Amino acid sequence: MKLYDSTMAPNPRRVRVFMAEKGVDCENIQVDIIKGENLDESFLSINPRGLLPTLVLDDGTVIDETVAICRYIEETHPEPPLLGSDAISKAHIEARQRHMEFDGLLAAADAFRNSFPGFSSRGLAGNAGSVDAIPALAERGKNAMLRFYESLDTALNGSAFIAGETFSIADITALCTIDFAAGAARVPIPDHCSNVQRWHAEVSARPSAEA
Amino acid sequence: MKLYDSTMAPNPRRVRVFMAEKGVDCENIQVDIIKGENLDESFLSINPRGLLPTLVLDDGTVIDETVAICRYIEETHPEPPLLGSDAISKAHIEARQRHMEFDGLLAAADAFRNSFPGFSSRGLAGNAGSVDAIPALAERGKNAMLRFYESLDTALNGSAFIAGETFSIADITALCTIDFAAGAARVPIPDHCSNVQRWHAEVSARPSAEA
Repeated sequence: MKLYDSTMAPNPRRVRVFMAEKGVDCENIQVDIIKGENLDESFLSINPRGLLPTLVLDDGTVIDETVAICRYIEETHPEPPLLGSDAISKAHIEARQRHMEFDGLLAAADAFRNSFPGFSSRGLAGNAGSVDAIPALAERGKNAMLRFYESLDTALNGSAFIAGETFSIADITALCTIDFAAGAARVPIPDHCSNVQRWHAEVSARPSAEA
Repeated sequence: MKLYDSTMAPNPRRVRVFMAEKGVDCENIQVDIIKGENLDESFLSINPRGLLPTLVLDDGTVIDETVAICRYIEETHPEPPLLGSDAISKAHIEARQRHMEFDGLLAAADAFRNSFPGFSSRGLAGNAGSVDAIPALAERGKNAMLRFYESLDTALNGSAFIAGETFSIADITALCTIDFAAGAARVPIPDHCSNVQRWHAEVSARPSAEA
């Protein structure tokens, strides 16, 4: 398998951490998003949407979406389960993972993409053509990210992980979201969100967080 | 089971169509989003994020997210499979379903929510507080939806359904996205997108589309 990857972006890291938790190895090919290598013909011929991560299997099958790649890895390497183990836990983990995406990752992406000077005409990710950044959307994203921290702090009160007592894909999405928000988007965890701080220190200490 | 539902919104319809394809019945409780009933204390006590659909199982378990509800239904009512049947088809369907969400549904939602007068201070869905609509985001969403139609038209050339030869959750997401875009967001399928027109007529003729 080959993973088309970018170490600066949050979505590819979600896959790297997921694979590290499973002990799955994979050839790694870096694609520089800032330079726009994801929009070069050579990459668009693999993934026409121009987005990372993209996994190419040994038989040439392309899986071009973050959670779909994780789903494939979960199906082919079931242990440890990161997407749940019965109907209720699968549903609960999926819900929490999607809360992390829609409330957190989209907010952080709005904050970053609409304020980063290099993306002033790349307001949407991937092969969307010239799209102006919207400064008001950067501000909205920053405020939404701050609300996300508050909500997550409440949810983590008395809970070891994002979806309960077991580490799951929801923790991976949240970790990659928060590290991206704190770095690229400049919205770090507020000091008073002590449950988020505690959880973040714990998941960051797992070997997979290095991925 | 009880489904907290709104017939005017695309996400609850995704669950209704999914259940109809499976032949699953469920008590239905309407929540009026325009009137803000989703932000009433009585509903927030069930789903603090204030979003629909929300499923409550007979034992009181709450599943508060569209695809998580579909996952639960798929696990408890496996036939016909709508989320795939092996590692590759599960990954492919998940990828296509998420393309429909991120490229289509989010675009249509941006176009609607940032131009509908009743949501001028409800720029984000659910319990996000007062968030100003961003007119430039409505325009960006409309343009993104038009690009989505073009891309979908290419993908449907020679393909019966969104993820290949089998009807799946990806078709349900696309159907609900497009009907919402054409109605509430006023971005109908362009006449020249004949593959999308053909596919839309076919999936709209399925009994589940009435749900």
